Amino acid sequence: MTLALLVADPFAGTLALLALVWLAAKAGGELALRLRLPAVAGELAAGLALAALHRGFPGFPDVASSPGAMVLANLGVILLMFAVGLESTVGQMLQVGLASLRVAVVGVLLPMGAGLLGAWLMLPAGTPFVVDLFIGACLCATSIGISVQVLREQGAATSDEGRVIVGAAVIDDVLGLLVLVAVSGLAVAGASGGPLPWGQLGRTLGLALVFLSVALTLGRVATPHLFRLASRLRSEQLLLPTGLAFAFLLAWAGNLAGLAPIVGAYAAGLILEPASVATLEERESHSLEALLHPLVMVLAPVFFVLMGAQVDVGSLFSPRILLFSGLLALLGTFGKYLSGFAGGGRLRASVLGWGMVPRGEVGLIFVAVGSQIQVGGRPLLAPEVQAAVVGALLLTTVAGPVGLAAVLGRRTEP
Amino acid sequence: MTLALLVADPFAGTLALLALVWLAAKAGGELALRLRLPAVAGELAAGLALAALHRGFPGFPDVASSPGAMVLANLGVILLMFAVGLESTVGQMLQVGLASLRVAVVGVLLPMGAGLLGAWLMLPAGTPFVVDLFIGACLCATSIGISVQVLREQGAATSDEGRVIVGAAVIDDVLGLLVLVAVSGLAVAGASGGPLPWGQLGRTLGLALVFLSVALTLGRVATPHLFRLASRLRSEQLLLPTGLAFAFLLAWAGNLAGLAPIVGAYAAGLILEPASVATLEERESHSLEALLHPLVMVLAPVFFVLMGAQVDVGSLFSPRILLFSGLLALLGTFGKYLSGFAGGGRLRASVLGWGMVPRGEVGLIFVAVGSQIQVGGRPLLAPEVQAAVVGALLLTTVAGPVGLAAVLGRRTEP
Repeated sequence: MTLALLVADPFAGTLALLALVWLAAKAGGELALRLRLPAVAGELAAGLALAALHRGFPGFPDVASSPGAMVLANLGVILLMFAVGLESTVGQMLQVGLASLRVAVVGVLLPMGAGLLGAWLMLPAGTPFVVDLFIGACLCATSIGISVQVLREQGAATSDEGRVIVGAAVIDDVLGLLVLVAVSGLAVAGASGGPLPWGQLGRTLGLALVFLSVALTLGRVATPHLFRLASRLRSEQLLLPTGLAFAFLLAWAGNLAGLAPIVGAYAAGLILEPASVATLEERESHSLEALLHPLVMVLAPVFFVLMGAQVDVGSLFSPRILLFSGLLALLGTFGKYLSGFAGGGRLRASVLGWGMVPRGEVGLIFVAVGSQIQVGGRPLLAPEVQAAVVGALLLTTVAGPVGLAAVLGRRTEP
Repeated sequence: MTLALLVADPFAGTLALLALVWLAAKAGGELALRLRLPAVAGELAAGLALAALHRGFPGFPDVASSPGAMVLANLGVILLMFAVGLESTVGQMLQVGLASLRVAVVGVLLPMGAGLLGAWLMLPAGTPFVVDLFIGACLCATSIGISVQVLREQGAATSDEGRVIVGAAVIDDVLGLLVLVAVSGLAVAGASGGPLPWGQLGRTLGLALVFLSVALTLGRVATPHLFRLASRLRSEQLLLPTGLAFAFLLAWAGNLAGLAPIVGAYAAGLILEPASVATLEERESHSLEALLHPLVMVLAPVFFVLMGAQVDVGSLFSPRILLFSGLLALLGTFGKYLSGFAGGGRLRASVLGWGMVPRGEVGLIFVAVGSQIQVGGRPLLAPEVQAAVVGALLLTTVAGPVGLAAVLGRRTEP
């Protein structure tokens, strides 16, 4: 009879899987710490190990495809960016705005150029120029989650360098969006002989800028009133749910404007000035940041483990692809590293540069778009080129936190 | 082109929906408080309202069917029960064990008898006795999440009555499992002429008892060692992830033994004595309960709102079904209320009784089983009977917290 099935709660499997993710994250983090690497590198490696176990032993649970773990992972990075935003104010970010802009622009152009060069060297003669350009574009966008975690581990999230890195990553996201529209438009235009999508480019940039300006001006004026309204309610435990609702709505709205949800969540943190929530914080005798802390502590590792688990290491086993991957990763890392010198002033260029190295989701979106654009009946990026680019993204994701922790550690040790 | 789709993060919709759930929960809770009702009743009502809005305006998001919100809701009730378990020790629960056992046994038998009587009165003559019995069985199991929330709101979770209620609900879960095996076995045996499933009954009881005894004895001996091991690691932020991994593994193991995952999570909280985690708590300068608190604060309302949103109010619109529902709810509430007098001693019978009134998931499992057992080519429970029983469960779910808050408030006010 079906009794056993009905009594078996489908969510119980998710619970066991989450327990596995946490234990793996802590084991990986511990190993990394003992090797003097940042804990987040160990969490990524733990994900790689869990995915490898699943491939080796089909009975072993598949962490990467669990919808429950995925929900918590997505929440984890959103909450992490909200928490980072709370640590700074709009004013502090504007102070480092020009430095961030310089780092972001150089950090988009140099890796694109370097990637283009690498593709031109490695791909057979006669490959259309737009393919080389597209491969370079895949390397342009920084994935900020990992660097933020390393900065927090090393207590440098609110240093000037920390702020410049996060600010540059936000600008990066806007620039990446523009590059994607431009380069994919160029590829489609080249294939069809049509004009470049100038109108779409303008709309994309306009929408992103409108969202950011409205959020940082109007949002900043409106939030004190919103939270004052909430503090008039008699209910208890208002601060955290209201704060999260605010952050999540901004993440959603930012995504409507084409930005990654983490950019909206970060903007929400920036906008929320301490004075706005002071009444509620006093009433609940906890600060918003203190209440957020356990959530980030539990959910961020799920994000990093799942990020590691989603890598298909198997696709890198061909020596030619591995060589191409390695070259692209090296050039991409070097390009982002050099962008650190665009920060100027008293800012430590190596910290800025290494902070911009990790690539992630945005690069994967580029690869996905490149696989869908058809040029002469074939995808713009051939499958082996896709594998090589994904491999390069992965390598920068592992190299970034290791390099950043190393240069940060150099200062703190005597 | 597909660019907009690729940039649109599917998780952004989940974020907006979660924001809606929290805002609705707080609005409903506030309204309930101003009506002198428990906040959790307002959260249930907020869920009902969101579901009604979705039915009325098809463009309005469907909270009840969001996989992301569902994951957080399921986590919410697990964490709530883990937190409640942490507030008591195994010793304290054993002290109230006999009172809990009496309340649980009487609270299963009386509502079953009362429900059987109601079904016998309302259903047409000639309905097989096993149908009446099955309807009675649907009313036997308490859904503890709601009562626990009311007890916490009123600061009575660690009162003797609070402990007896939670203890009785755990025993209830075992008894409910046995009733389900027995009554559905009886129905199948009656339909097929086969013998009663004595073997299966014995195995079910044995498995549940083995899990609970092993958890409460061996688990209690082993946990100090496990957490001492964790405290030898150099990593930071070990306490909460390790504690959650422990709770989730016990919830999963309990479900393998046929128990609801919340029973395992509660057992995990009981087993974890303060001394086991003292080293980690000191190192992280937060107690496990303090770290767990924000998680429960954020996730438990998602559970209550989704519980309300899953009710299909439309199915109750037939007057005959509504009458049958009301009668069953009345009889079921009365049966559980009387069970409070089985507690004995100085325990307040009305608090115990009202605490046992809410029914939920387990009753719905009974209905699902009853709809799948075929007797003479037709389901044991006809569709309108199913609707009536579900309606009765819903009514007790709303009546329970209101009654419990009323009798608890009676003491605190002069």
